[in-house]
Amino acid sequence: MKNFISVNDVTGPSGNGNTINEMVKEALAYKADPFLDKALGEGKRIGLLFLNPSMRTRLSTQVAAQNLGMEPIVFNIDKEGWKLEFDEEAIMSGDTVEHVKDAAPIMGKYFDILAIRTFPSLKNKEEDYSELYINQFIKYAGIPVVSLESATLHPLQSFTDVITIQESLNKNPLPAGKKPKIVLTWAPHVKPLPQCVANSFAQWINAWGEADFVITHPEDYELDPKFTAGATITHNQDEALKDADFVYVKNWSAYEDYGKIYCNDPVWMLTHEKLKQTNNAKVMHCLPVRRNVELSDEILDSANSLVTEEAGNRVWAAQTVLSNILRSI
Amino acid sequence: MKNFISVNDVTGPSGNGNTINEMVKEALAYKADPFLDKALGEGKRIGLLFLNPSMRTRLSTQVAAQNLGMEPIVFNIDKEGWKLEFDEEAIMSGDTVEHVKDAAPIMGKYFDILAIRTFPSLKNKEEDYSELYINQFIKYAGIPVVSLESATLHPLQSFTDVITIQESLNKNPLPAGKKPKIVLTWAPHVKPLPQCVANSFAQWINAWGEADFVITHPEDYELDPKFTAGATITHNQDEALKDADFVYVKNWSAYEDYGKIYCNDPVWMLTHEKLKQTNNAKVMHCLPVRRNVELSDEILDSANSLVTEEAGNRVWAAQTVLSNILRSI
Amino acid sequence: MKNFISVNDVTGPSGNGNTINEMVKEALAYKADPFLDKALGEGKRIGLLFLNPSMRTRLSTQVAAQNLGMEPIVFNIDKEGWKLEFDEEAIMSGDTVEHVKDAAPIMGKYFDILAIRTFPSLKNKEEDYSELYINQFIKYAGIPVVSLESATLHPLQSFTDVITIQESLNKNPLPAGKKPKIVLTWAPHVKPLPQCVANSFAQWINAWGEADFVITHPEDYELDPKFTAGATITHNQDEALKDADFVYVKNWSAYEDYGKIYCNDPVWMLTHEKLKQTNNAKVMHCLPVRRNVELSDEILDSANSLVTEEAGNRVWAAQTVLSNILRSI
Repeated sequence: MKNFISVNDVTGPSGNGNTINEMVKEALAYKADPFLDKALGEGKRIGLLFLNPSMRTRLSTQVAAQNLGMEPIVFNIDKEGWKLEFDEEAIMSGDTVEHVKDAAPIMGKYFDILAIRTFPSLKNKEEDYSELYINQFIKYAGIPVVSLESATLHPLQSFTDVITIQESLNKNPLPAGKKPKIVLTWAPHVKPLPQCVANSFAQWINAWGEADFVITHPEDYELDPKFTAGATITHNQDEALKDADFVYVKNWSAYEDYGKIYCNDPVWMLTHEKLKQTNNAKVMHCLPVRRNVELSDEILDSANSLVTEEAGNRVWAAQTVLSNILRSI
Repeated sequence: MKNFISVNDVTGPSGNGNTINEMVKEALAYKADPFLDKALGEGKRIGLLFLNPSMRTRLSTQVAAQNLGMEPIVFNIDKEGWKLEFDEEAIMSGDTVEHVKDAAPIMGKYFDILAIRTFPSLKNKEEDYSELYINQFIKYAGIPVVSLESATLHPLQSFTDVITIQESLNKNPLPAGKKPKIVLTWAPHVKPLPQCVANSFAQWINAWGEADFVITHPEDYELDPKFTAGATITHNQDEALKDADFVYVKNWSAYEDYGKIYCNDPVWMLTHEKLKQTNNAKVMHCLPVRRNVELSDEILDSANSLVTEEAGNRVWAAQTVLSNILRSI
Repeated sequence: MKNFISVNDVTGPSGNGNTINEMVKEALAYKADPFLDKALGEGKRIGLLFLNPSMRTRLSTQVAAQNLGMEPIVFNIDKEGWKLEFDEEAIMSGDTVEHVKDAAPIMGKYFDILAIRTFPSLKNKEEDYSELYINQFIKYAGIPVVSLESATLHPLQSFTDVITIQESLNKNPLPAGKKPKIVLTWAPHVKPLPQCVANSFAQWINAWGEADFVITHPEDYELDPKFTAGATITHNQDEALKDADFVYVKNWSAYEDYGKIYCNDPVWMLTHEKLKQTNNAKVMHCLPVRRNVELSDEILDSANSLVTEEAGNRVWAAQTVLSNILRSI
């Protein structure tokens, strides 16, 4: 693996669910024995560069790197450094202090792997969906780049989600031959959020190819068909939830009328009552979650919730990705 | 040792000064040989979570963890992350982004020990004195929790203070059978400070039981009797200082009329002149200290001052606490 | 080496270019084999204390310390801590929370080496040029102090610059007996910058003594003669550039009318056209650089630019300095 920006870095552009399954197995092997590859990263260094805040992603990747014997160096460039310029040919007389064309190759000198978090503006769809920021880092760093969430995708989260689903299925197998029904449902929130987690989850579940996959959201919250194609899409949440085995809850702002919020109808919040329509579904969320806005206490505090297990699995997802990259350099 | 939140985690609720003495010995052994237990923390990780600023506590705990072979990960959640919610059943439509009920168990997945700093509001006495924040972390993290100063106590500081007093007594023994006279004196300051350090010092000196302990402060600055009971309390600083062997200087805001400042009388600042009444007392302060407001240059820069030695001992206090916890997990 | 504050810590006050050459060789040996002295720093700790933002300096020094087996601890005291007081005898009733007289000796207890970045005010020349801040740390820390850029000098950068020039000369030797012509040229910028990098470059090139050294800048931008004495100084950039082998580009604010900006004439920006007057000169800059304000894209993106190589060499400069200090403690 060279970079880790989307599921395509795992499966190739044509998709290959088997490759995902192999990586899930590797991740669960690390979970069983975290120091399995302690020598693999010896003398190697990873830079964790944050242009935006992070908790789980930062901590789990830092832990994953240490488990592999690497030295992680965290740098909150937005707080400890200064504002980067990403536009080619910019005349830098404004508030940006350093161009990615200068910063990225230097990171490439200091580190063996560079991991980056950068959020979308939610103002300029074309720019966000071009993934300008992370692509500029890939173009100029000269070392493998790992996305810690970019403008439109969050592949470490989605890989974790597949691991968590598979782990749950290993513990509670479905009847032979039955695919799990997985539902991605929109949830209310108090402010406009990126589409990254939803896009990325759709992309991974589709590439994995081992689920009956349904997406449900209010009208006007359609996601980019590039990621959702292959899933069943409905505006009827009840219909979607019926017999679901896994319900993935997430808010996102509008993709078409970019970054806008239309409906914030609390009726879309998942409750115990709604969960009765499912096959006693496991409930997932990438966290942080606004309790009793996005998802009710009664669900989060119940045995149906996988959210803590899911967040814990972030370590094994990151460790698997880093070990694959380490083996290739 | 399971958690380290107050002296009760050392001595049990009924108090046992001998246990403190044993821990002081361990700390001085670490001071003599910092890498004595370098293998003890191998493969173990401690999360140092700051909801408020810190210098000595952060650095000394980080150093202590490394001395034990642990990997410390510092996370300034107030700056690098987002605002946590602590109220049960909160409807999170405001400015809090993540509930401790979700964040804490995840820390419990990433780390073996969790250390936390959190300050009081100084607005709501009942809430601060319930130690809601750190107790929520204990309730939900599922791993040992170490206080790096909480709303009402600062046990790593107080353990350090006992170590420093004992170390000083080892160097300059008192006549056989004579207990040291230790005075905790209020000092002026420019803004309202927590009662933590004073509460905690009182709690530890009382539990230690090897001193003649006097607390002096202006009227209306009474501390919570829960911590001070057993000490002699007086509003007459001169009387308190008479023949003192150790003077611990600290400002705090009012406990009764919670968080208020009444008197800020500079006459309460310790000076060389006042020190003449003591038994050439050693002067202590937890730092940071407002020079020439809380404590005069002439004292801080004299041979009477133990403040640098005291701050240095923070490492050995933290190392002793972490090693005791490591041995129990 | 005890401290590393200026070139005088390498060569002694009378200057000794040979000593610089020896250190350049050590640095290039580390570049060839980064883990050459992995055991040298075992059990040693360096504190990296930032009173101002940093990217290259912080990351490269952190990497250098790790290469030597040391444990680096980064502390952004301006963001994670509080404001320090530097004035002796201050009555601290204002916004400073801790005096360097208290903070520095404690750093001396926690670390084996202390590295510090602190910027000038650009308001009070006398205070800035007295190097009050870093000198207070040296006075009170009691351990070796390394400048990560101080009010008037940036020695790790300048040492790197000499390494980079020597490395370039090793690859493309000049005719036997010919000294390289090195030009330090002022460049336009959008805001007042310190004189540190320019002062320090002049000080090092002069002490090195192996170049024909020319400084060029608009009128009223004279640097402190203490650092420039020995160099040819001209206001005619074209004349300066003629036959140059290395052009070092940097903005600085006025030294005489301290911190002011007079001229910001874009004609001073180095271009491909201007470079034609040189001996196909290599172009250097300490970074961050304002593209198309200080230096044009066409130069930065050309084979003439050494800026990435130069920034990469920061690691080997820092590693050499730290190893020299480690050997002396």
